[in-house]
Amino acid sequence: MHPVSTDEVARVIRIAAAARLAVWPFSAGKNWGYGATMGFREGALIMVLDRMDRILSVDERMAVALIEPGVTQGQLNTYLKTNGISLWADCTDSTPKGSVIGNALERGVGYTPYWDHFAHLCGMEVVLPTGDIVRTGGGPEGSRTWNLHKWGTGPYLEGLFSQSNFGIVTQAGVWLMPTPDAFGCFLCEVEDEGNQAALVDTLRQLVLRRVISSNVHIVNDVMLLAQMIQYPYDMLGGATHLSPDMRAALRRKYKIAPWTVSGGLYGPASHVRGSRRLIKRELSRFGRVTLLNDRSFGVLSALTGFWDRHRGNSVVASVMPVLLRASIEKLGVIRHIYPILKGIPGEDIVGFAYFKSRRGRPKRDVDPARDGAGLMWLAVACPMSGKDSARLVALCRDCFESHGLDLSITFIMVNARTALGLVEIFYDKDSPDESARAQALYDTVTDVAERDGFPQYRTSVAYSDRILNRAPAFQQLVNALKAAIDPADVLAPGRYGIGLR
Amino acid sequence: MHPVSTDEVARVIRIAAAARLAVWPFSAGKNWGYGATMGFREGALIMVLDRMDRILSVDERMAVALIEPGVTQGQLNTYLKTNGISLWADCTDSTPKGSVIGNALERGVGYTPYWDHFAHLCGMEVVLPTGDIVRTGGGPEGSRTWNLHKWGTGPYLEGLFSQSNFGIVTQAGVWLMPTPDAFGCFLCEVEDEGNQAALVDTLRQLVLRRVISSNVHIVNDVMLLAQMIQYPYDMLGGATHLSPDMRAALRRKYKIAPWTVSGGLYGPASHVRGSRRLIKRELSRFGRVTLLNDRSFGVLSALTGFWDRHRGNSVVASVMPVLLRASIEKLGVIRHIYPILKGIPGEDIVGFAYFKSRRGRPKRDVDPARDGAGLMWLAVACPMSGKDSARLVALCRDCFESHGLDLSITFIMVNARTALGLVEIFYDKDSPDESARAQALYDTVTDVAERDGFPQYRTSVAYSDRILNRAPAFQQLVNALKAAIDPADVLAPGRYGIGLR
Repeated sequence: MHPVSTDEVARVIRIAAAARLAVWPFSAGKNWGYGATMGFREGALIMVLDRMDRILSVDERMAVALIEPGVTQGQLNTYLKTNGISLWADCTDSTPKGSVIGNALERGVGYTPYWDHFAHLCGMEVVLPTGDIVRTGGGPEGSRTWNLHKWGTGPYLEGLFSQSNFGIVTQAGVWLMPTPDAFGCFLCEVEDEGNQAALVDTLRQLVLRRVISSNVHIVNDVMLLAQMIQYPYDMLGGATHLSPDMRAALRRKYKIAPWTVSGGLYGPASHVRGSRRLIKRELSRFGRVTLLNDRSFGVLSALTGFWDRHRGNSVVASVMPVLLRASIEKLGVIRHIYPILKGIPGEDIVGFAYFKSRRGRPKRDVDPARDGAGLMWLAVACPMSGKDSARLVALCRDCFESHGLDLSITFIMVNARTALGLVEIFYDKDSPDESARAQALYDTVTDVAERDGFPQYRTSVAYSDRILNRAPAFQQLVNALKAAIDPADVLAPGRYGIGLR
Repeated sequence: MHPVSTDEVARVIRIAAAARLAVWPFSAGKNWGYGATMGFREGALIMVLDRMDRILSVDERMAVALIEPGVTQGQLNTYLKTNGISLWADCTDSTPKGSVIGNALERGVGYTPYWDHFAHLCGMEVVLPTGDIVRTGGGPEGSRTWNLHKWGTGPYLEGLFSQSNFGIVTQAGVWLMPTPDAFGCFLCEVEDEGNQAALVDTLRQLVLRRVISSNVHIVNDVMLLAQMIQYPYDMLGGATHLSPDMRAALRRKYKIAPWTVSGGLYGPASHVRGSRRLIKRELSRFGRVTLLNDRSFGVLSALTGFWDRHRGNSVVASVMPVLLRASIEKLGVIRHIYPILKGIPGEDIVGFAYFKSRRGRPKRDVDPARDGAGLMWLAVACPMSGKDSARLVALCRDCFESHGLDLSITFIMVNARTALGLVEIFYDKDSPDESARAQALYDTVTDVAERDGFPQYRTSVAYSDRILNRAPAFQQLVNALKAAIDPADVLAPGRYGIGLR
């Protein structure tokens, strides 16, 4: 069901509680890779909040919006642009149809200095599992700081409603970033696969030193290929996955590196200039550093467009890769990433989900959940340290190897000291054997990583039961809170393992 | 009692719960102005954690320490300096003997980019009121990211233990700042009292634009005087407080402005240079802008020392104020503030608490709680906006006027969008009449501000009962959580109004 108001949500919850019917709420239902709108058990009421899509206010001066959970990242960005409001909303690289609040509550991350979406929520209206409506933040009704003062008065409770099943957030304040004075982005193509550890240490230092004030992404070759092309089944020749030689050949063909780093630069012009210099100095030893701003990106886009239109021309096809030191496919990815670094969402990047689909990927209306694209991913928290991240890569490599699949991994900084290791498992959904291996690999990597001290960062609805069971005291506390807030166990029972006994 | 270990804390809590004896825990007991170690009701067990003062680890590479609640800000800073660790711990301008964890849990703020102390806690060990011991953050025991991944796995529960009575934090990770490449600070002396609103709007923009990446403080003339001198009782001539003319005369005498702004600059040299230029450009229209770095501060210190040693010399006494465009007293404050901006705590600033003490202020071992200095303060959250902050000043001015006391107010940025308005009520504790007026003023300002939409930011133990009662749904939720976590109501019952029914 699709309620239209907070009161309707509260009424439904009260009726469901009385009838002991479980309710599974979803903001927009685009939590791809983590379960989308899948209920954990049979017989639950699915509540999608997509009709609660009002942007209730935007205060340009204070740089904050108050929105409902059905507001999508595409909608919010269009609203800001259409109304000439000089604020940027951070976005993920997933679909523009994803919910801003839903992503923040699941602790999703984007690209700008406001990348930590949960950190930039402030002030919530929540329907509790009893049907009561509460505003977080303490303080009097009519408070001037509900959406401005992050921690509120008294205990900070907003964390309770994130990665959990304690309430349905029906409104939230979202901090937005004033259009920065200057913007730029950097790429570094790391030539030596073995330099990954040193790279991570260097990036951490750059962030701790405040040279970089935003998120950085580090993708391996397979993940970058997934954004560029369809899986090269023709290369396999009987193997189930690409050998190191085949990967090297693909890197040469598409002019990509074993690891590619990207990030944005935001702030006063003097800061952005200074950061460009320091990044060039620190990262050049790892490989080619490319710095882009709106002007150079414009030139690059024009050249890429020209190249695209004249692909058949043999002169163009031989000159352009040399001139730009890139492949048309790689430039295509840069063209898609650049707007996202400025908070403008697009559906092209998430097309990587169709990497191993034998039916190809759609040009528009990308929806891997609907289309049954063969991708699972799991995300673990990893120290933003060379040693730890190298350990995680080694663990994953062994697991992928033994399951006959291609290691695809992305490190996404969630704060200066932690990255989430996003492990993408691409598989051919039309192959029952490969699907089974992918499933087994998911379980193995989760287990192996957890045993080695890399906790889950966020989990799929289908794997809720395993998220907390290695921390029994924490699980017990969370269960006690759940019982107090949701005595009838009506709201998403078992989500994130909460309430499972 | 003063436990020495987590296990001892847990044992005491279990015994107290069985005996239905309330336990009031304090980290170091220096929560001056907010109740220090005062229990809310008679007959409670006071537990001070000052013997749990181990610095368990400092990881310089990841810039994080794991400490116990008895560790003071002075101790942590000395440890870092003595061991040659290139990390700064943010500190408040209160006593070096204050607890790092205690201050963070009460949402205290300092001065550097790590000023929001609660935001920089990561990973807690907590003794619950049942005596159970839990680690926040979810994930497996032995997790590599316990002190690195802020939100943990599953619901983020650390907020529960802040400004509350849900548990006793016996260990916590504290993020530290790598020594910045460059450092500087700025002062702006705002000549026209009426420019306060425009100033606040300008400062907010500078912070949102990331020109300033740390906290800013805005103090009015009375608060600055309190840091410089003893109360000028001789000026009163029968009045109970200073008239506008008297304040103006004092400003002229001590060469201070109606409002003074201060803040630090931290980061790569290019960023600090760029920020200095932009701050000078934006703030010069309000009054004199002074920029300091270690070199100019050294010169200033030397000149101030010379002046101090030759105070009796009439040439020095007439030349120096003109040369430095300052009073020796104002320079004294700058000398005390500058190290705090670099994370080095000192006890001089908090000497302002003795402003109206007729016995003067101690040169060292400052302890206003012990010495019965006449100061109460209350802190309200205020949007970092000119209009709202001017409204708060006007409300406070009327209240102070009608109670015959001097308006002293400091705006301290708690995030780019919110300031805490710290309203200091200086009074002569030896005067029963003035003490009664001070008390009445505290109540009045709290009421008036709250009715006007300025919620309490943090409150005194003595005023716990009023903190949440204007938000009944929030109070009800908090009470339900309290009942679940602390069924015997053993831990600091009624603190922050929690559990009061």
